[in-house]
Amino acid sequence: MPTVKLVDENDPDPIVQRVFADIKATKKIDFIPAIWRALASHPPHLEMCWTRLKAIMQPGKVDLLTKEIIALAVSATNNCRYCINSHTAAVQRLGLDNEGLGEVLAVVGLFNQMNKLADAYQVEPDILPEPR
Amino acid sequence: MPTVKLVDENDPDPIVQRVFADIKATKKIDFIPAIWRALASHPPHLEMCWTRLKAIMQPGKVDLLTKEIIALAVSATNNCRYCINSHTAAVQRLGLDNEGLGEVLAVVGLFNQMNKLADAYQVEPDILPEPR
Amino acid sequence: MPTVKLVDENDPDPIVQRVFADIKATKKIDFIPAIWRALASHPPHLEMCWTRLKAIMQPGKVDLLTKEIIALAVSATNNCRYCINSHTAAVQRLGLDNEGLGEVLAVVGLFNQMNKLADAYQVEPDILPEPR
Amino acid sequence: MPTVKLVDENDPDPIVQRVFADIKATKKIDFIPAIWRALASHPPHLEMCWTRLKAIMQPGKVDLLTKEIIALAVSATNNCRYCINSHTAAVQRLGLDNEGLGEVLAVVGLFNQMNKLADAYQVEPDILPEPR
Amino acid sequence: MPTVKLVDENDPDPIVQRVFADIKATKKIDFIPAIWRALASHPPHLEMCWTRLKAIMQPGKVDLLTKEIIALAVSATNNCRYCINSHTAAVQRLGLDNEGLGEVLAVVGLFNQMNKLADAYQVEPDILPEPR
Amino acid sequence: MPTVKLVDENDPDPIVQRVFADIKATKKIDFIPAIWRALASHPPHLEMCWTRLKAIMQPGKVDLLTKEIIALAVSATNNCRYCINSHTAAVQRLGLDNEGLGEVLAVVGLFNQMNKLADAYQVEPDILPEPR
Repeated sequence: MPTVKLVDENDPDPIVQRVFADIKATKKIDFIPAIWRALASHPPHLEMCWTRLKAIMQPGKVDLLTKEIIALAVSATNNCRYCINSHTAAVQRLGLDNEGLGEVLAVVGLFNQMNKLADAYQVEPDILPEPR
Repeated sequence: MPTVKLVDENDPDPIVQRVFADIKATKKIDFIPAIWRALASHPPHLEMCWTRLKAIMQPGKVDLLTKEIIALAVSATNNCRYCINSHTAAVQRLGLDNEGLGEVLAVVGLFNQMNKLADAYQVEPDILPEPR
Repeated sequence: MPTVKLVDENDPDPIVQRVFADIKATKKIDFIPAIWRALASHPPHLEMCWTRLKAIMQPGKVDLLTKEIIALAVSATNNCRYCINSHTAAVQRLGLDNEGLGEVLAVVGLFNQMNKLADAYQVEPDILPEPR
Repeated sequence: MPTVKLVDENDPDPIVQRVFADIKATKKIDFIPAIWRALASHPPHLEMCWTRLKAIMQPGKVDLLTKEIIALAVSATNNCRYCINSHTAAVQRLGLDNEGLGEVLAVVGLFNQMNKLADAYQVEPDILPEPR
Repeated sequence: MPTVKLVDENDPDPIVQRVFADIKATKKIDFIPAIWRALASHPPHLEMCWTRLKAIMQPGKVDLLTKEIIALAVSATNNCRYCINSHTAAVQRLGLDNEGLGEVLAVVGLFNQMNKLADAYQVEPDILPEPR
Repeated sequence: MPTVKLVDENDPDPIVQRVFADIKATKKIDFIPAIWRALASHPPHLEMCWTRLKAIMQPGKVDLLTKEIIALAVSATNNCRYCINSHTAAVQRLGLDNEGLGEVLAVVGLFNQMNKLADAYQVEPDILPEPR
């Protein structure tokens, strides 16, 4: 259960109204996901979070599917239940099927293992020679 | 300083010889990165780690640059110094420039923040309606 | 569901009786929170945990609200569901409203992001000059 | 060693110039801390990070020392070397002595322990009765 | 709720059939635990995970109970709900009672605390003298 | 570099003297490890940490080598450099050779991977039937 009362979608606060309208328009959805309704309990923070997410999650040198894959990799590594659900749905909507999802998570699992082995043996970064 | 003596590149153990040769051939490099020399202190584990990494890090539904980007995202989230250095070098070798790297890390930073906010407010996964 | 049977509030074990009575008296509550009933499955550990928590969570140079805010910041960063609920309730009871909670969590989110960026870029600590 | 070349303090990029000048003026310092010089390798992200940090790290319902204490608690929990150094220096500059620092870190250590015990025993959040 | 449809225990895919049969035979159980049914959504990854787990979780220099205790310590530190449940059941099946479990978790809690204190104070590894 | 001045081994504070003497006698060593010299900057916390560690790290239902293995597993999962070094030295002193260490770390790596896969697929705990 959320630790604050989720703010109503029709809350009259002008910051909340502006951000909620932009979320619906940008994401082309008819409802406000729960995370934004929780953040709206402190409207200035809601606005900062949303404008930054909107700016970062635009296609650039890196395309949107890759950005959502990164979001999923981070969320799985952190074990954030809400975010795992949300970003798994996003990568599926952007066209990744079960096999592709399996490949992504195989890489996530692999490097969570390799990270801990590198730490456990305390290996120092390689002085990388030029590639052949 | 590593917690075990790094195994020499010319170690006579047959498993070590076989794996080290395959690492050089597969990665097209002339040296053995430190993590593999540490893992070689227990050869059966060295072989398991290498064969699995080799199998997962092949292009499939997801291309190799994306897989290295996932590896970097996981390593940064876990703060693994050795792995951050190694996978940053890998994505650069595969063509990602500073702007692309900046975009990748912006997404990594963003969702490390959003993960904690979703957790802190204990929001429940959305029941997702069909996209419009 | 807890992985051990929660110990009954009226359990006859003398360590459990002593600690449970002190928890009720110290926290001015009429029930034993679940974490202490779980820890009571191994009474010596229950006692060590409680006496240490009681000693640390007293006002000192740092006041109690700040200590509970730290507890919430740690719990959100670790994503501990039980603890997030418990410490959010505690800071609210000590007078922090939704705006104050929003500020606290904004700082928690911000530095979970900044931590990962500092790690990802592998920046070395600044040699700090004296403040102007 | 940083994974990107740290951007020079006198870099001509207009975004970099504007942000670096604001960092010096706001923090009343004569140099640019390494994290900002690394972020400047992708100027739009530098600006987003700085403006958000500046907005959040202003005194509000929660004072600045408490905000820096939260930053330290998060950084210690995440084990971010750069950030631990930077925020320890900040809380000391704001007047926390070794005893106060010891109290803060005692709370950080305590709840890193309690978090894991609550998780390990899988205890469910208490249904909190009203305080007596 | 799982993010993929759990694969049926009687799925006709030959890799899935082979691995599921081996899981039942090796673990001497009549059902397929949920994690393997989820991994079966991408059969090659299922097989890699299972063969490696089977190889590592055999008694060697370190006995099976100790290996399951390590698995529980890792899972509690990472707060993985599924894995905490599964490995707590395993150590109980192998004979650890509530007192033994309490001792294991006391050590897990203790070093989650000590880890953060060592990080927070940024202490350098000791140059260890020979034991007396 | 530590964030506080490490307290001298001959510091006259009576709590520090008492604890430092007990550390040397208990561990049969001639020097004070750095973590205790850092904690001594706030003597009451030093004493709480030491007495608890001493009580928990005694052989009980679980022997000392297993307890040090747990400490290493936790420290590697958390990536605590000081603690990884210290507990690797401890398990080696208690007789674990490179092969045994390799087995321990193989289990640590394996379940850091499996934890993230179980989280990523959001699998629910199995309703465990009785073993055959």
